[in-house]
Amino acid sequence: MIKNDEYFMSLAIKQAEIALKKDEVPIGAIIVKDNKIISKGYNVRESKNDALGHAEIVAIKKACKKLNSWRLCGCKIYVTIEPCLMCAGAIVQSRIDEVIFGSYDTKGGAFGSNIDITKISNLNHYPKVTNGVLKEKCQSIIKNYFKQKREVKKCQNH
Amino acid sequence: MIKNDEYFMSLAIKQAEIALKKDEVPIGAIIVKDNKIISKGYNVRESKNDALGHAEIVAIKKACKKLNSWRLCGCKIYVTIEPCLMCAGAIVQSRIDEVIFGSYDTKGGAFGSNIDITKISNLNHYPKVTNGVLKEKCQSIIKNYFKQKREVKKCQNH
Repeated sequence: MIKNDEYFMSLAIKQAEIALKKDEVPIGAIIVKDNKIISKGYNVRESKNDALGHAEIVAIKKACKKLNSWRLCGCKIYVTIEPCLMCAGAIVQSRIDEVIFGSYDTKGGAFGSNIDITKISNLNHYPKVTNGVLKEKCQSIIKNYFKQKREVKKCQNH
Repeated sequence: MIKNDEYFMSLAIKQAEIALKKDEVPIGAIIVKDNKIISKGYNVRESKNDALGHAEIVAIKKACKKLNSWRLCGCKIYVTIEPCLMCAGAIVQSRIDEVIFGSYDTKGGAFGSNIDITKISNLNHYPKVTNGVLKEKCQSIIKNYFKQKREVKKCQNH
């Protein structure tokens, strides 16, 4: 198995699939350093009643613990969907070298969609940003989730 | 004791003073609902080696747990210093009604200094923002902290 961006993103997708099984918005994240997985996370906002329970935050918290450092220099984060403002801010705070995401979040994405935080001056860190890795798969999981949610709602209102 | 903004900010300052004793950047936060304290937090980034260990994040996490909800509607957060991008994003995510801070953070503040996130369109929540409550005291704690740090460094390099 070649450990390239597609490989690590496929693992982030597996995390999203765990979230899906728990009826959470299916988003997953993986943090990698020197080609080794440091931590994994999936969205737990509803099940843990935690506003901070986004996949990226879960993975960053675990990575800090594992590396015993708040500085995640040398790390990359793979996320299925473009991070929101909070998660983009957490990536800046943790000094993660690179963020690789699958699909844009046209509504709330903070790396180019709704806002591009890398265009904000004076931040104390700017990660490299790559997008579109396994885009279709990342997008379809979340699209299907919301489609199903809408159908259930329609059915209930019938 | 009148439970006004100054009262709650003075409690946030007490949290900042705990951080100071632990040699952390002295920032404190308090979350209040219906004039009752829901949670407290102070900066633990260094002592807990946690990039997410800002005062606001600590307080939001505890508040979600206490109220058993990721939605902190009806809550206000008092912070001694203007929140950064991550914390501002967390305030949006947790739907906190109002953020009241003491002193501006001219370098990294996300409610008017470096950026004003309330000017970003399409966010799913916009808190009311108030600043300048017990400004001098909030500012002096952090200024003295950094001044002392610089003096220690100067002494070491002498």
